[in-house]
Amino acid sequence: MEPRSGCPISAAVEVLGDRWTLLVLRDVIFGDRRYFRALLTGSIEGIASNILADRLKRLIDAGILARGGVVVRGQRARFSLTEAGIQTVPIICALGDWGLDWRPGSEELRARQRLLRAGGPAFIEELMDELRVRHLDAPPMPHSGPSPLERLDAASAAASDSTSP
Amino acid sequence: MEPRSGCPISAAVEVLGDRWTLLVLRDVIFGDRRYFRALLTGSIEGIASNILADRLKRLIDAGILARGGVVVRGQRARFSLTEAGIQTVPIICALGDWGLDWRPGSEELRARQRLLRAGGPAFIEELMDELRVRHLDAPPMPHSGPSPLERLDAASAAASDSTSP
Repeated sequence: MEPRSGCPISAAVEVLGDRWTLLVLRDVIFGDRRYFRALLTGSIEGIASNILADRLKRLIDAGILARGGVVVRGQRARFSLTEAGIQTVPIICALGDWGLDWRPGSEELRARQRLLRAGGPAFIEELMDELRVRHLDAPPMPHSGPSPLERLDAASAAASDSTSP
Repeated sequence: MEPRSGCPISAAVEVLGDRWTLLVLRDVIFGDRRYFRALLTGSIEGIASNILADRLKRLIDAGILARGGVVVRGQRARFSLTEAGIQTVPIICALGDWGLDWRPGSEELRARQRLLRAGGPAFIEELMDELRVRHLDAPPMPHSGPSPLERLDAASAAASDSTSP
């Protein structure tokens, strides 16, 4: 697909400037949802099945997701982020930071975003490295303690506990 | 408008997850286009007039743009960024960085984005300060030399000269 103008912002929004596309990417990245059914049933915004199928196809056509692994009879292919997909993380984090400041939301989900913001660019780099291990079969980094995705889940769980009756 | 979920990423993409919305914002921010006609005739992607009117209304409803100044008979109101609008700059810069790496484009427009990226977060902060002066009537900063927007225009002009026959 030839971009409509030579502007790199425009070229990016032609692929990423769509609400459901960005939410599917969010769920693959932060929710580690790799199968159609997991993306469909896990969607907190209630994505429709035809919209999900369309957006997955567009993300694959744009080289942001890849359909990986051998398709065994009766077993669905798994989606993986490509390097281009992993590099959408800073965009999605910038969107979340803006939402944190300018839109209402639930404490449980805002706690994740606050951790992400507090970690700054170094945390985002570490998260992208974790995604390269999970999605691109990069060799695991030597690390101690919980991974970035585990720390985000823990922040969310802690906020959920503290707001429960 | 109540967000569809409590997630700050979702709350942001409900407002900003739209191709034309992001391009209108880009033109207000980087092109300093403040009037309907300037946004319409200056659009390098050729935005349609009804789409532009709809997206401007949505941006005003979301508190990202404000219709400013006294509406004089025969003179159109001028659009200004709000503080929430100015804080979309990091999102638009992140999109441009991704476009620079993963999509084709013209050298003239890519040169702007390269300067923006090379400047890092400090340049983005300086640019947001300049927008506060232009759009929010903040007092001008003492500065020497060209402003961030002037430097971006110069980068683009230099790239354009060097690619001319």
